[in-house]
Amino acid sequence: MSTAAERRDPIKPAARVARQNQDVWSIVNEAAAASPIQPIVNMGQGFFGYNPPQFVIDAAKASLDKVECNQYSPTKGRPRLKKAIANAYSPFFGREINPETEVTITTGANEGMLSAFMAFLEAGDEVIVFEPFFDQYISNIEMPGGKVVYVPMHPPPNGSTTTSSASEWKIDMEQFEAAITPRTRMVVLNSPHNPIGKVFSREELLAVGELCVKHGIIILSDEVYDRLYYVPFTRVATLSPEIDRLTLTVGSGGKNFYATGWRVGWLIGPENLIKYVSAAHTRICYSSVSPLQEATAVGFEEADKHDFWNQSKREMRAKMTKFNAVWDELGLPYSDPEGGYFVLVNMSRVKLPADYDFPPHVASRPRDFKLSWFLIKELGVAAIPPTEFFTPQNAHIVEDWLRFAVCKEDSVLENAMERLRGLKKYIH
Amino acid sequence: MSTAAERRDPIKPAARVARQNQDVWSIVNEAAAASPIQPIVNMGQGFFGYNPPQFVIDAAKASLDKVECNQYSPTKGRPRLKKAIANAYSPFFGREINPETEVTITTGANEGMLSAFMAFLEAGDEVIVFEPFFDQYISNIEMPGGKVVYVPMHPPPNGSTTTSSASEWKIDMEQFEAAITPRTRMVVLNSPHNPIGKVFSREELLAVGELCVKHGIIILSDEVYDRLYYVPFTRVATLSPEIDRLTLTVGSGGKNFYATGWRVGWLIGPENLIKYVSAAHTRICYSSVSPLQEATAVGFEEADKHDFWNQSKREMRAKMTKFNAVWDELGLPYSDPEGGYFVLVNMSRVKLPADYDFPPHVASRPRDFKLSWFLIKELGVAAIPPTEFFTPQNAHIVEDWLRFAVCKEDSVLENAMERLRGLKKYIH
Repeated sequence: MSTAAERRDPIKPAARVARQNQDVWSIVNEAAAASPIQPIVNMGQGFFGYNPPQFVIDAAKASLDKVECNQYSPTKGRPRLKKAIANAYSPFFGREINPETEVTITTGANEGMLSAFMAFLEAGDEVIVFEPFFDQYISNIEMPGGKVVYVPMHPPPNGSTTTSSASEWKIDMEQFEAAITPRTRMVVLNSPHNPIGKVFSREELLAVGELCVKHGIIILSDEVYDRLYYVPFTRVATLSPEIDRLTLTVGSGGKNFYATGWRVGWLIGPENLIKYVSAAHTRICYSSVSPLQEATAVGFEEADKHDFWNQSKREMRAKMTKFNAVWDELGLPYSDPEGGYFVLVNMSRVKLPADYDFPPHVASRPRDFKLSWFLIKELGVAAIPPTEFFTPQNAHIVEDWLRFAVCKEDSVLENAMERLRGLKKYIH
Repeated sequence: MSTAAERRDPIKPAARVARQNQDVWSIVNEAAAASPIQPIVNMGQGFFGYNPPQFVIDAAKASLDKVECNQYSPTKGRPRLKKAIANAYSPFFGREINPETEVTITTGANEGMLSAFMAFLEAGDEVIVFEPFFDQYISNIEMPGGKVVYVPMHPPPNGSTTTSSASEWKIDMEQFEAAITPRTRMVVLNSPHNPIGKVFSREELLAVGELCVKHGIIILSDEVYDRLYYVPFTRVATLSPEIDRLTLTVGSGGKNFYATGWRVGWLIGPENLIKYVSAAHTRICYSSVSPLQEATAVGFEEADKHDFWNQSKREMRAKMTKFNAVWDELGLPYSDPEGGYFVLVNMSRVKLPADYDFPPHVASRPRDFKLSWFLIKELGVAAIPPTEFFTPQNAHIVEDWLRFAVCKEDSVLENAMERLRGLKKYIH
């Protein structure tokens, strides 16, 4: 028994949510909303500026007419979607994926990755994450009590002066191995990589994979941009049976079918890993959204008939080429992406006016936040400051870069390019 | 540095998912699938046997044609839905609910409750849960390290011989207060109650609420069946400003609009609670499904125009009355629901054949599992054994009861009734 006076404040939050600092998405979106130039051209967050393909939209509408597609799905996902994914991915994996035991559907890739961390991490267990990283990884690892161990990727040596391939961002394998301890349970890979646009080579993945086998580390491979690669793409799970045994591959219907708001993701992996991911997912979300699972199933079933995957890759690459011409024109170097829809541009040649008035929450951040703010306010184009994807001690690596998402209508890209030409007078 | 030999098994799961025992839904669904009588009449899980109202389906289809409705929603939910909910609930709360600060959208009520536990529980903090409880509460409390403290509800004294109102299930307030310790952070309420069908009275809620104020305990009030009540319904948050200050009210688009597979839920509460729930939700799911949030918004906006709420309540009550006639006919007492769509039926008069062959995973469970199995195999009707919603030491309270969900087409109810008449020969 106790009295209120003896007790702590009843509304005190748990430590895991107590830090209420603004995330980068909110900072950029709010600045964009308040820009004197409206409408802003938002190339910040990686949502699509156009709809999913019509055959997938039609499938979603048709599923809404079916009683069972509006009610609970099985916790591991709708049988039709699991089967469609197994059928679509078995050729890539070079073996038959069992839809009942080796695929589990999650509420977007994000909750899928959280489910994997919840499935395998005890408090104090370590997870190796390469910098830069997608920011949600960190809170997802910390929620079950995991500890993030960061290993930086190294930028192209001449990145501030010369456009170079995203392949030139490198992991130092000795740094990676040195980061492994007896508490290392998992490593997070991401290929094609956000925000770098690197597609890890077979050799790089094999080196990481073999160290994971040697040390008994589970590989969580975030491959949500797996249909958008412009160089040969390797899936780490396919490199050896020993690596496969330790690998969970993460996919996303939202990224594949231009529907980031649908929240349909999945993990593929060996039965004795997947069953625990499913168990965690059941405890987190119970089941995932039914009608859009059904539509995603149809997406996979009919994609080849519509030549969707080739078309998708061709169109995105054309957008990337089209947009990056403005950097060539301005003489600003960029990291030429091998996959995905993000491009990192180096702005060290852009001189911000010395007396420019930045608000305190921007002035206190690295230079990329100031660049982002300046582009929003002066040119009406929003981009993401990538230091947010680094720890403070390594943020300097990308303080001159900005991330642009090209998954937008061509007319939007053209508008952005026209506005970005206004940078010319700041380039010396 | 370590070698594989020194390390634990890399695929060892975390303790939170290691227990892989079958949940009651899987046991019943699998038994139903294997019954000699097909198709089974499934009155087990509380999914609807019919579609959402056409105006909501139409809204979902229309939203699929809008680019922004297929992309990420804000993490706290779509502005239109938050506003529609604030407008719909302000009259019930007797004050203006601020849609921007006092409502947050979650991936179903389930993930909403997990977000609340994640927001306020540190390891070792206690949460009081009344038995019977919805089974997901338990894993949701335990995931952030919370400890469940159980307080049993007491059944109607003559429940095995006489049909009585669900209001006769009672909380012993002295037992409740005795369960409060300095570590008690939250209490979970559920009204209308699943599986009991009780609508807590104003006096009962006030007694609980005042003790929570006295001891500084957050009230998580699961009100997902809030549109289906057949006696006056009180929301605990409305009982005093002091109680309101500590109360998070949970709602569900899936339950309100017959779409359990849509995964659209919400919490309403004071800003200084809601902001932490939102923060936890962002870390769990990032954002929730966009097109179905938009459709749910239209559901609220247009419900009154279609007289949907009155019709919904009227129809569900009619289903309940229609179906329960079979128990009156058979002379089996039930707990007459005051709300929701579940009915608990007392089967102590049903004599199972002494030599009946139950499989080991059923034979080892309380009598309600045997009753459920028997009804599935011999009559072709599935119902849920409610001991699953109790701790083992209190399971005896409901070992003679079964839970039936009446949210099914009338023809299905009629078929169920016809089959259930086959029980007559086992009633002595």
